[in-house]
Amino acid sequence: MYTGIVEPQSITFDTDIRLESGRILGPITLAYETYGELNADRSNAILVAHAWTGNAHLAGKYSEEEQKPGWWDAIVGSGRLLDTDRYCVICANVIGSCYGSTGPADINPKTGKRYNLSFPVITVRDMVRAHVLLIDHLGIDRLVTVLGGSMGGMQALEWATQFPDRIASAVVLATSPHPSAQAIALNAVARWAIFNDPTWKKGEYRKNPKDGLALARGIGHITFLSDESMTAKFGRRFTARDGLFDFFGQFEVERYLSYNGYNFVDRFDTNSFLYLAKALDLYDVAWGCESLEEAFQPVAAPLQFFAFTSDWLYPHNQTEEMVLVLEKLGKRVEYHLIESSYGHDAFLLEHETFAPLVKGFLDRL
Amino acid sequence: MYTGIVEPQSITFDTDIRLESGRILGPITLAYETYGELNADRSNAILVAHAWTGNAHLAGKYSEEEQKPGWWDAIVGSGRLLDTDRYCVICANVIGSCYGSTGPADINPKTGKRYNLSFPVITVRDMVRAHVLLIDHLGIDRLVTVLGGSMGGMQALEWATQFPDRIASAVVLATSPHPSAQAIALNAVARWAIFNDPTWKKGEYRKNPKDGLALARGIGHITFLSDESMTAKFGRRFTARDGLFDFFGQFEVERYLSYNGYNFVDRFDTNSFLYLAKALDLYDVAWGCESLEEAFQPVAAPLQFFAFTSDWLYPHNQTEEMVLVLEKLGKRVEYHLIESSYGHDAFLLEHETFAPLVKGFLDRL
Repeated sequence: MYTGIVEPQSITFDTDIRLESGRILGPITLAYETYGELNADRSNAILVAHAWTGNAHLAGKYSEEEQKPGWWDAIVGSGRLLDTDRYCVICANVIGSCYGSTGPADINPKTGKRYNLSFPVITVRDMVRAHVLLIDHLGIDRLVTVLGGSMGGMQALEWATQFPDRIASAVVLATSPHPSAQAIALNAVARWAIFNDPTWKKGEYRKNPKDGLALARGIGHITFLSDESMTAKFGRRFTARDGLFDFFGQFEVERYLSYNGYNFVDRFDTNSFLYLAKALDLYDVAWGCESLEEAFQPVAAPLQFFAFTSDWLYPHNQTEEMVLVLEKLGKRVEYHLIESSYGHDAFLLEHETFAPLVKGFLDRL
Repeated sequence: MYTGIVEPQSITFDTDIRLESGRILGPITLAYETYGELNADRSNAILVAHAWTGNAHLAGKYSEEEQKPGWWDAIVGSGRLLDTDRYCVICANVIGSCYGSTGPADINPKTGKRYNLSFPVITVRDMVRAHVLLIDHLGIDRLVTVLGGSMGGMQALEWATQFPDRIASAVVLATSPHPSAQAIALNAVARWAIFNDPTWKKGEYRKNPKDGLALARGIGHITFLSDESMTAKFGRRFTARDGLFDFFGQFEVERYLSYNGYNFVDRFDTNSFLYLAKALDLYDVAWGCESLEEAFQPVAAPLQFFAFTSDWLYPHNQTEEMVLVLEKLGKRVEYHLIESSYGHDAFLLEHETFAPLVKGFLDRL
């Protein structure tokens, strides 16, 4: 728990970056937040990389009145895993997102219009390339660690392989080196749900296309949980207000997905959702390489991996695939398979289990 | 392979049946087909129960010109598992479906209009209740076996528990005694995809609402396969015609789901899809009972169960739950867990593996 009042920050780099696609994006605005103080030689910074629908508001509150703290407040603060008495913790929104960093909902300064689908397809590597601008700007040579789960873990892998001299370590949770056909298929039907929504208008909507986005989120939501956790939470219970034989009657799990899906519409831009889904599917740590071996060759920092038994989106054997290659290459790597029923979301929820292990890892550096 | 020319048959019972919901449905038309001859004492009949989007056209062709035989032709015919030299094999379309048995797309003779959403919510038990009318009509006291997978297996379970003296055995493949929260959730998002389609018009469409139904089928399709089989078939390949960085560019798996989804629109009625999805989710073999023990108490016939290792829709532990209870009750039960990468669809595809086991089971009766 971070007790300080947090100031949302933003910086615009009047520069173009060349994306993996060959296209150019610029200027680049990045929204970010920091917790704790940077020391004199700027050697105590930790970067937390967020997942698909995350943002830079990692911890703390913007005001006393704010109801909920940042999304991973539990691991940030005095005496916590990301100890703000020791570290300066940084979290930045990724490009392509809709929480202050340059994304499809922004005005393209070159045209004066919203990017919408003229926004270039981006990759996780592009996200990290943009964040390097921020770390440079803050005068940080080397991060103590980059820590992230899911798409955040992919970013950590990109730091480790593309910018190996800029990190002293990385912590990778619930991450795939290259999502499987099934994971792609599940994102594909989520995209399809949006494409089907006539109010999406090929991205030229004025108002977020709610039915399509809510359904897309509903599909995603299923992949973040597990059969076990859904059974524990909802079982086969039918909603009390509906008759079992009402055509539109809902099971509890059905109502939950719908409720959360429609809530999501208020907080996330549909085109951003699509661009980031695409970045997830395209992700391959061995992008441009012949093999995982070649991809991991440049790794210089020790890496710590966590996978979770019930994660069926990025199942643990995918993490183990990376660990085996890194071990074979003689890299310093540590791996923990955590027993959990929370599915993919376990990386956010099981912090009491993994925090001591991450702390030990960071202390041994 | 069934070599005879098949005659589609249909019968209308001018009777009402009282459904589990308390509502009344009638008259009841059933489409069915038979393969092989009924013997003099009508003791050689086997009923095959179809799954969600199946129909009565189990095997053979309607004419020499027909391109494809029925959906499970491989196991029917002279010398095959369902040996038409020995057995009279029957397959009937379920009520609620759109292949000739009474369903939401039919005209309600009481109003002269299509049922659409005025069709009552039906259960698997109701489907079987309707099929009992047919078996009565054919003068069959006792079926040699009822064999089915998925929703077909649920029907076999209903015969075994609700009409125990009407069957000499049952063969249940890839079936859940009560689909889990995750299975319900996956059907829920499929329903949602249809509800979102403005051309669905709360069921009052003239033309099948294609985008919604295709997507719903795409979601279902994922649940019928496995990560392993999708990886083997598609991996992470991108379609050759699309650029990797095209916004609308597709992975092969994505294109496959879309292609098959839109094909499905030509062959299945959207409202039927919804009614049968609901029947699947509502399914509970212990419907109206306190426990599985109580539900299985009436079982008189030997039961044979098959589950498939990579089936994540109705995973094998759900079958094992039933087998354990039946064993505890001292019922005659046989169980085989088949190693397969085909996911839920394995019950259709792995017939070479299970056919000898089913044959042995039937021969021992």
